[in-house]
Amino acid sequence: MARPPVLTPQAENFPQWYQDVLDKAELASNGPARGTMVIRPYAYAIWERMQAQVDRRIKAAGAENVYFPLFIPNSYLEREAEHVEGFSPELAIVTHAGGKELAEPLVVRPTSETVFGEMMANWIQGHRDLPLLLNQWANVVRWELRPRTFLRTSEFLWQEGHTAHATRDDASAYARLIHESVYHEFLTGELAISVLLGRKTAKERFAGATDTLTCEAMMGDGKALQLATSHELGQNFAEAFDMNYLDVDGERRTCWTTSWGSSTRMVGGLIMAHGDDRGLVLPPRIAPFQVVIVPVRDQPEVMETVDRIATALGDQGVRVRVDRDTHLGLGRRVTAWELKGVPLRIEIGPRDLESGSAVLIRRDTAGKSAVPIDTLASTVPDLLVRIQHDITASARRRTEERTVEVDDLDSARAVARHGFARLPWNLVGVDGEASLAEDALTVRCLQREDGSLPRPEDDDDDLLAVVARAY
Amino acid sequence: MARPPVLTPQAENFPQWYQDVLDKAELASNGPARGTMVIRPYAYAIWERMQAQVDRRIKAAGAENVYFPLFIPNSYLEREAEHVEGFSPELAIVTHAGGKELAEPLVVRPTSETVFGEMMANWIQGHRDLPLLLNQWANVVRWELRPRTFLRTSEFLWQEGHTAHATRDDASAYARLIHESVYHEFLTGELAISVLLGRKTAKERFAGATDTLTCEAMMGDGKALQLATSHELGQNFAEAFDMNYLDVDGERRTCWTTSWGSSTRMVGGLIMAHGDDRGLVLPPRIAPFQVVIVPVRDQPEVMETVDRIATALGDQGVRVRVDRDTHLGLGRRVTAWELKGVPLRIEIGPRDLESGSAVLIRRDTAGKSAVPIDTLASTVPDLLVRIQHDITASARRRTEERTVEVDDLDSARAVARHGFARLPWNLVGVDGEASLAEDALTVRCLQREDGSLPRPEDDDDDLLAVVARAY
Repeated sequence: MARPPVLTPQAENFPQWYQDVLDKAELASNGPARGTMVIRPYAYAIWERMQAQVDRRIKAAGAENVYFPLFIPNSYLEREAEHVEGFSPELAIVTHAGGKELAEPLVVRPTSETVFGEMMANWIQGHRDLPLLLNQWANVVRWELRPRTFLRTSEFLWQEGHTAHATRDDASAYARLIHESVYHEFLTGELAISVLLGRKTAKERFAGATDTLTCEAMMGDGKALQLATSHELGQNFAEAFDMNYLDVDGERRTCWTTSWGSSTRMVGGLIMAHGDDRGLVLPPRIAPFQVVIVPVRDQPEVMETVDRIATALGDQGVRVRVDRDTHLGLGRRVTAWELKGVPLRIEIGPRDLESGSAVLIRRDTAGKSAVPIDTLASTVPDLLVRIQHDITASARRRTEERTVEVDDLDSARAVARHGFARLPWNLVGVDGEASLAEDALTVRCLQREDGSLPRPEDDDDDLLAVVARAY
Repeated sequence: MARPPVLTPQAENFPQWYQDVLDKAELASNGPARGTMVIRPYAYAIWERMQAQVDRRIKAAGAENVYFPLFIPNSYLEREAEHVEGFSPELAIVTHAGGKELAEPLVVRPTSETVFGEMMANWIQGHRDLPLLLNQWANVVRWELRPRTFLRTSEFLWQEGHTAHATRDDASAYARLIHESVYHEFLTGELAISVLLGRKTAKERFAGATDTLTCEAMMGDGKALQLATSHELGQNFAEAFDMNYLDVDGERRTCWTTSWGSSTRMVGGLIMAHGDDRGLVLPPRIAPFQVVIVPVRDQPEVMETVDRIATALGDQGVRVRVDRDTHLGLGRRVTAWELKGVPLRIEIGPRDLESGSAVLIRRDTAGKSAVPIDTLASTVPDLLVRIQHDITASARRRTEERTVEVDDLDSARAVARHGFARLPWNLVGVDGEASLAEDALTVRCLQREDGSLPRPEDDDDDLLAVVARAY
């Protein structure tokens, strides 16, 4: 007897499927203030793993962590004209504190280029102080008209890097290093997401940047999600905040800066990139627990075996959870673990004990096999590697299948209804981009023909545009 | 020739010494908004280690991490009368967002009992949902009249735990578990701080709590610093937010809740508990790097040996930094490493190479010894353990020496000028506490005679009061 679906099927209504997953897998709830969210334990455990993996890569790229204040004087934002224009509509403002009206209102940081600019200008004196490579993990606030949990929330968690360099080339090279060795490697290597690298068009650039690099990914419904961006800021912020250094030759020179960020939006991307009608599908490298062991019923011999397997897998470095809610029916428990996307499920009942085997079920393929209990500790680690590989390949295949090369704007419109269209940017142009926007389509990024990240010297007109619907 | 002191001597002006250390060791700067701080890389690295160690203990105590919104509707705070009264004077208020005035002003969280209360009430249905054990790492804002970096800042970083239980005994036992197995063990075992455990007086209790447990420590100048607190909240918040559960017997019952927190204030405590006139003194278990290897000058043979030692120590699990700023004079570099409190310094020059030995200098005792280079990898790990032990013992000795048992209020006043006075609470009482306040003295906590944490059933009148000046 088939169980009724717990979730709205993706094909029927993808956004509703996403909301259902958030709720039924106990990932997040709406907060009381408009557009805010409560991140529940299971989703937060995913975020903690994301943080650890991104943080390790950021440190390997030489940046050091710091913490800067939540509140920024309004006057700071006004020092960089494009920046304040871009962020003004989204700001939350503190006007009263300590029982009094403030002399100058404070902005709740939407991003921290300005306050980093002010402090870094104090810390940088000579050329030996460069590059100055900083990063912070923090919450930021951008008031959202149409909030959507994890994807666009009024408050979100992120890391924001801020660096200063002696030359434009140094700044440019560092922004690329972060983009490729931190973001791209993390998103593909850990999250198993198929990522398009590219440069944003002038219209889509970060407010105050001279160049914005982006990681774009295709979700299950063929729409794009921007997952991380790295900005060359030229000398815009350095000039606004007098950030300069005494060079070897005795000349005082203005710095070149970058900033780069990735956020809890990646949790939403992970859900929508791999999830299916039964819920989350987590790649083993990011899963809070990679294996759940499900005793069919609570019998001493069964529970002893379950604990023995858990210990053996734990010794192999596998993250294991034992399902001890045996007061609930097996079907209900299985549904819950599928919802949570645990990569591997091991079911064990009295009959399995007799045959000395356990049933192993993959979440991604639903493939079942009976495996001798004594070989689990040697089988499972390899199987987890294979699952990671297969989820990666499956996401890449979907992205490739639904990305179509076209050679005019009308074809791009048609393709972008279900996936990504690629065509020369000079066939789109600023006017074409504006007309696409009327159909809720955007140029996600500009790429080289082989799909690689443009070099700083590449002219937009020599690049291909990726057109898609987007979250 | 003696170098001039970099810091104001502690004996001359302890608060100025503290400010000097923050500045010269590059730990923190003032932020642009009143009372906020910028935590610089070295201090943030200390905080990251604190977070990791506290987080590991919190998880071992069964709590799960979550993230709740920064903004709380003002009406939430008003639901618990003592709570809103306690926090109102310190609140920062967002009145405008997204270009409009908000219908209901939002409070920037000073602490999150209310919003946790609201959500936990939704999540708790039956007795199987209890205990519900949650924790978050977050920033909070409390407008400070007299801010002091790390000790009292308008914004600070902390963890706040919020738990719900079926019975008063369960709640009480869990608050004690956190207080002892998380806070006390971390502060003594990792930070090497000598901690007094106790119960707050009614006057000093958290706003809305029925009981507050505290960890108090003596700083280098004999003043007390509160380092972590754990609160039994009775049913105050559970009633205000309708947090109840269906019990086994079919009755609906109100939950009992706790909350508990520790913050970046611990960084200030670490500085002031162990620092001396040359700067920080970091216990090896919390030091971002435990050993700095200082080449006397930049010669190929010296640098090769330095790198070899660094690798050998790293292989032993020792956190090592190599000083490569050989363009600076040795004296200046040594001063900088002393300021930063690195537990062990290894100096190596051409003459040391000839003798096959290196000079090992302990930061805590300034003790120097020549050690054969080939034995460093086996010597250093043990020496770090000894240093941790010695710093712990030294802090404990100072606390014991400067804690005096007295039997009247006047003697308490005299003793508390330089340290801690202990006397029966029934010799102080509510009136005595008020009169001590006139001399800027406070009852830090109430303890059992043997210095242990009072049991819930202990009457205040049977306990000893610890009187001190406090930060």
